[in-house]
Amino acid sequence: MSAYTHPHNDADFVFEHIVEFNQLCQQAGLEDINTELSSAILTEAAKLGTDVLAPLNWEGDQNGTSMTEKGVQESPGFAEAYQQFVESGWPSLTAAEAFGGQNLPHVMGTAVNEVWHTSNLAFALCPMLTHGAISSLTNHGSKEMQDTWLPNMINGTWTGTMNLTEPSAGTDLAAVKTKAVPNGDHYLISGQKIFITWGDHQMTENIVHLVLARTPDAPAGVKGISLFIVPKFMLDEAGNTTDKQNDVKCISTEHKLGIHASPTCTMSFGDNGGAVGYLVGEENKGLSYMFTMMNHARQDVGLQGLAISERSYQQARDYAKERVQGTNKDGSRFTIINFPDVRRMLMLMKAGTEAMRALSYYASAEIDRSHFAADDSAKVKHHNRVELMTPIVKGWLTEFAQELTYLGTQIHGGMGFVEETGSAQHYRDARILTIYEGTTGIQALDLVGRKTLVNGGEFLQDLLNDIAETAEALKASDKFASHAAKLSSALDKAAQARQWLLDNAKEDRSAAGAISVNMMMMMGFLCGGWMMGKSAIKADKLLAAGEGHEDFLKAKLITCQFYFDHLLPRVDGYFAVIQNGGESMMAMPEDSF
Amino acid sequence: MSAYTHPHNDADFVFEHIVEFNQLCQQAGLEDINTELSSAILTEAAKLGTDVLAPLNWEGDQNGTSMTEKGVQESPGFAEAYQQFVESGWPSLTAAEAFGGQNLPHVMGTAVNEVWHTSNLAFALCPMLTHGAISSLTNHGSKEMQDTWLPNMINGTWTGTMNLTEPSAGTDLAAVKTKAVPNGDHYLISGQKIFITWGDHQMTENIVHLVLARTPDAPAGVKGISLFIVPKFMLDEAGNTTDKQNDVKCISTEHKLGIHASPTCTMSFGDNGGAVGYLVGEENKGLSYMFTMMNHARQDVGLQGLAISERSYQQARDYAKERVQGTNKDGSRFTIINFPDVRRMLMLMKAGTEAMRALSYYASAEIDRSHFAADDSAKVKHHNRVELMTPIVKGWLTEFAQELTYLGTQIHGGMGFVEETGSAQHYRDARILTIYEGTTGIQALDLVGRKTLVNGGEFLQDLLNDIAETAEALKASDKFASHAAKLSSALDKAAQARQWLLDNAKEDRSAAGAISVNMMMMMGFLCGGWMMGKSAIKADKLLAAGEGHEDFLKAKLITCQFYFDHLLPRVDGYFAVIQNGGESMMAMPEDSF
Repeated sequence: MSAYTHPHNDADFVFEHIVEFNQLCQQAGLEDINTELSSAILTEAAKLGTDVLAPLNWEGDQNGTSMTEKGVQESPGFAEAYQQFVESGWPSLTAAEAFGGQNLPHVMGTAVNEVWHTSNLAFALCPMLTHGAISSLTNHGSKEMQDTWLPNMINGTWTGTMNLTEPSAGTDLAAVKTKAVPNGDHYLISGQKIFITWGDHQMTENIVHLVLARTPDAPAGVKGISLFIVPKFMLDEAGNTTDKQNDVKCISTEHKLGIHASPTCTMSFGDNGGAVGYLVGEENKGLSYMFTMMNHARQDVGLQGLAISERSYQQARDYAKERVQGTNKDGSRFTIINFPDVRRMLMLMKAGTEAMRALSYYASAEIDRSHFAADDSAKVKHHNRVELMTPIVKGWLTEFAQELTYLGTQIHGGMGFVEETGSAQHYRDARILTIYEGTTGIQALDLVGRKTLVNGGEFLQDLLNDIAETAEALKASDKFASHAAKLSSALDKAAQARQWLLDNAKEDRSAAGAISVNMMMMMGFLCGGWMMGKSAIKADKLLAAGEGHEDFLKAKLITCQFYFDHLLPRVDGYFAVIQNGGESMMAMPEDSF
Repeated sequence: MSAYTHPHNDADFVFEHIVEFNQLCQQAGLEDINTELSSAILTEAAKLGTDVLAPLNWEGDQNGTSMTEKGVQESPGFAEAYQQFVESGWPSLTAAEAFGGQNLPHVMGTAVNEVWHTSNLAFALCPMLTHGAISSLTNHGSKEMQDTWLPNMINGTWTGTMNLTEPSAGTDLAAVKTKAVPNGDHYLISGQKIFITWGDHQMTENIVHLVLARTPDAPAGVKGISLFIVPKFMLDEAGNTTDKQNDVKCISTEHKLGIHASPTCTMSFGDNGGAVGYLVGEENKGLSYMFTMMNHARQDVGLQGLAISERSYQQARDYAKERVQGTNKDGSRFTIINFPDVRRMLMLMKAGTEAMRALSYYASAEIDRSHFAADDSAKVKHHNRVELMTPIVKGWLTEFAQELTYLGTQIHGGMGFVEETGSAQHYRDARILTIYEGTTGIQALDLVGRKTLVNGGEFLQDLLNDIAETAEALKASDKFASHAAKLSSALDKAAQARQWLLDNAKEDRSAAGAISVNMMMMMGFLCGGWMMGKSAIKADKLLAAGEGHEDFLKAKLITCQFYFDHLLPRVDGYFAVIQNGGESMMAMPEDSF
């Protein structure tokens, strides 16, 4: 069990110097919004996170959700916490003003979501999924549909879900079998969906399910999937929730390794003739609508990687400062933070989380910039960057989170293996992150395929050019000569890997598959180095000018150096693997496994 | 839940061609023992593992141990399984003939232990700890003590434990506080021990605790620790167990992340005046006696890293061959083993476990050779190799096991996160391996300190010379030119790292600590490559001669190539970190964490 404190110095630093939030808001025409406001918002969010959500985290793990006659009963205290969350107006932070939203930039939502995910990952999944559903309806629903559903989803009165997966259709959505039969102004939905996060609970009066299904004459495969709204309870003509239950229910929940307080539901649609469903947009375009939701969610899951690592770090750090183990020659005792190897693990966690934070905020701000940039060509550039960064943020942050939460338990020694210590919960909770919203393998394939090979490596080249600018800026300062050399060396390897990919993988699916995860991880550690390079330059300037928080900035410089010394060099290992390619990977006959 | 099949082809291959078991047995004067016998023994062990122990593994996870009035109640079915284990004579396999043992080489025990650990890690810990206690008494107990205690421990009638850790004395055994007061022919022991594996159960009529404690006038620190036998039940004059309970009991068990069927006990000694304890060897030499046990156990824990990875691999492989996900253009479906990234993960697991197996058997055989080698100088050479290999086997195999069991769950996608699938159990069980019997940090420090810096890098140089021989042998064959180049390159980096260590870390504790884990992991992947290089040469020769199992040998060559392509290159990443040293690691003020 661990307390949670929001790392406000670092979040503010990233907002001001990496995100360049003030410039972003000006460009977006949001004159009243600036870093002073963002800092105040984060301070408020942190209060709710620290005081209300974080203390429920362990409780939710030990007393997960349960099945009752009414359906899924959420963990003790969660309904009250959700009520506070709604009353404080958090669900509507970044939603459109037209539907009652506060219209703040996307990156503001990201920084606030970090607070929710860090304080209570299982809880935070509920608003996160709702937000994805809002995003899909905002982009693809009719005006009437939006008017009906969005306001109550945006203010948190109702929650939302994503119903994609079926027993034989996980990564492979082409195999979706759920049916949607036209029936007057609506459709009748029948079928079974699995792995539905927060598919049922008693916290709100209604739940809005977004469901992928096939109409009777739909083409086979992914081009025959449509998206439907299926509410838990029917609405009356005025759009209010009635007590008439729709023909959808949760029939079981999964017994999982982690996130015990987040119900993972098997949903049954149409056991009594068909659940009423309303078509979103046009028929057969459901998959692309769902991707709006999914792409949004993918960066959010990356953010969860940061969040769970930060939580694990805070607990390990506190333990390392308190745990006495070791005796000086004079007989006095010392704490384990004085052991070099414990220091190394803490530094890996600190440098890792700070690089993750900078990268995830940066990538999130690129979403804003793809909307608000000055002209169309700039918008396209930022859009392309979002496309490229999404699999890196999702893939790298969640994979890295496995290692960092592992280190969090390792620092605890034997106590780390004891559940009551609480560190193991973070390790268990983290494990889902590389699986849901597209596995690491899927992210990596997205990165090398749709985001690189399809555009001839242009998006990637643009990114490498930007990183090269940072390497040049580092080179301009004597004290960062070593950083510059290391970043340039890593960059050079990334450029070679890009070329290898273009030369070898375009026609050869197995070559791409052989190196894709290595490529994604290499790009992640490189982008982390890019962010830390930018951070070092800023911290140095501020210190020279006598501005900012001196201790924080000095620590930032040390953390950056550690990143360059201990994390950026991993690029070498991934690169060496990429060069060796996939020849030996597909050679094994299936029977020899 | 997963079945378990012993990988007998690979075990036999390693025995014959890496361990060179026949040569070892001849040297040891064990004329009747050869690879034919070892293969038959493994086949028998595999039957018990597959049919009896493996099916209990999931049951033990879900129904872990419990506390009752009688003490710890083991998981359902475990007592019956233990009875079968004892009746088949397995506990005595490698023990001394003088006390009823079968006197087989140590490496035979290692290969058989792999079967127990793979089929049921929690169960196997019980005989493993007993074996450690036997080893300590065999080396340090008096003849009378050995006659009294060893036969029933060796035949499995009694089990044994290691009582080291106390609440404030984990890694730091200098802080042990448990007291031992002389009282006639025995001592009275009082104090509390924590994290005692299999500290209590009802499977046997008695339990023999080996306990570290301090006599009244003992010097402070590690030089004042003595080792005692403390039985659960007192013996009568004939050496039979009576119903008189000694003053020791388990007062609670831990609620753990994994190995739920292995009771982790808090043991209380002397609540009613003092537990009767018998001094082993001399006073104040307990720590070195315990290290006999511990060093033995460390290689065994490394072996557990292989075992849990193998189990996870078998389950993931079976799933990947069965799970349909994906549609060909003609509408037919295919299984996920056809996805390149799934293939990559399976190959990592296969290549990883095979390298681990070769290395752990090799290191175990070095223990035999340190006893049986032809002359004293050879014995010393093998002894030094054991010293060097122990932290590598413990450290590398257990760390690597975290990644491999992670991949095992990853291959299952969403199902991997569902507990009933069973893959998550392996992932949870594996988590303890880098903690107990000395954390990874401790192994790494042992490797760079006592095993390298103390001897001026001699042990390490000897190892690098042996690996260089294999690189030369690879170079001699055209088809292995690429392997040779890769192994030579990795070897060159290891040589540079060794020099870096000698130049920089002798005086600087933090430099050693900064690079030690990287050094250990680098050496692990290098040694794995050494083993795979040897294996490739052998497999190629056998194929050319038309000997051996053709499919197995062809698969071995592919697996070796994959290791050289995808695992050996990791040396580059570790080496790059080592070069950067520890400067940035200790620089952070404690308050800035």
